[in-house]
Amino acid sequence: MKLYGYFRSGTSYRTRIAMNLKGLEYDYLAVNLAQDEQLAETFKTLNPQGLVPVLQADDVLLYQSPAILEWLEEVYPVPPLLPSDAAGRMQVRALSAMIGCDIHPINNRRILQYLRHELSVDEAQVITWCNRWISEGFAALEKRLAADHTRGKFCYGDTPTFADCYLIPQVSSARRFEVDLTPYPTIVAIDAHCRTLKAFIDAEPMQQPDAPQAI
Amino acid sequence: MKLYGYFRSGTSYRTRIAMNLKGLEYDYLAVNLAQDEQLAETFKTLNPQGLVPVLQADDVLLYQSPAILEWLEEVYPVPPLLPSDAAGRMQVRALSAMIGCDIHPINNRRILQYLRHELSVDEAQVITWCNRWISEGFAALEKRLAADHTRGKFCYGDTPTFADCYLIPQVSSARRFEVDLTPYPTIVAIDAHCRTLKAFIDAEPMQQPDAPQAI
Repeated sequence: MKLYGYFRSGTSYRTRIAMNLKGLEYDYLAVNLAQDEQLAETFKTLNPQGLVPVLQADDVLLYQSPAILEWLEEVYPVPPLLPSDAAGRMQVRALSAMIGCDIHPINNRRILQYLRHELSVDEAQVITWCNRWISEGFAALEKRLAADHTRGKFCYGDTPTFADCYLIPQVSSARRFEVDLTPYPTIVAIDAHCRTLKAFIDAEPMQQPDAPQAI
Repeated sequence: MKLYGYFRSGTSYRTRIAMNLKGLEYDYLAVNLAQDEQLAETFKTLNPQGLVPVLQADDVLLYQSPAILEWLEEVYPVPPLLPSDAAGRMQVRALSAMIGCDIHPINNRRILQYLRHELSVDEAQVITWCNRWISEGFAALEKRLAADHTRGKFCYGDTPTFADCYLIPQVSSARRFEVDLTPYPTIVAIDAHCRTLKAFIDAEPMQQPDAPQAI
């Protein structure tokens, strides 16, 4: 399989985690978002939306990380990344959507570029923008996770699920934007636990071949 | 079942379509977003994120429309709103995510209120903002749908799927923001077909009890 992504892209990061958790090997193909390679015609023939990740698997070309994760779960069911009961799956998918719909897309690079260039928003206000949506989303997520009897070492139970694939990249992004994580101890604890595991470590942005190298 | 929603909310609208397509009856409970009722403590005990829709079904409290739709499909599988094969389900979920992640959340009321009140963006620029993300998303979606051999009268095949539940509310929102739909003939044709069907008509914002009444 070939995974087209970018080291720092949160949606690429979550897809790498899911593939690593499932023990799937793949070729990593970097698409440099900082140089707008995702908008080049060569990439747009793979995905007209001009967004990463794209997964080339056998004869299927997959796009949109929520759909890729569901496909991975159906085609490579072991180990499962969704609970075995409908209510549990609803909970994991809802936690995932809280991040994948209501936090991540609003702080996407194309949105921040629009704020900067079309609305002349200065860099301090761009940081405030990101902080606002991450903090608002994390506050709701923390409340859910802290109260939830199904939470374990991970967002749901004691094995990783989709929700952890979504959460860890979002925490990484929060740190980049210097969001104060003190109010979210449950999120911080789950993040700390996940980042001890090889599947999560190997998916980290700075572990990718297109990450800038330390001198 | 009890569905908490708002007549004009796109996520409530897509949930109503899915429930109507499945022939499920529900009590409609209006949460007035224009009066910020979703932020009241009474509603936040149902959903700490302060977002509609919320579905109370038997002993499960469901939130986040992507998770609600998947749960409906699992618990009420007939008629199906996903294709029977993994590649088809991937396609329908990806089309849904193109709308549910990359168009809808960016034009959400809370985002527009932030633009207006925190960034002092004027109303013309707010309309331009919405137009930009809807047009960019629809252009990619049109390209996909027009090229896709699996497209039929609906986004995928000749029976409705999740993708149509996502698309029709987004087209309705595009019309509200006066987006020029001329460049998207495939989207317009699918929308026109869906809006002849009772499940879609009954879910329309202006058919809901909390819609302003025509004099």
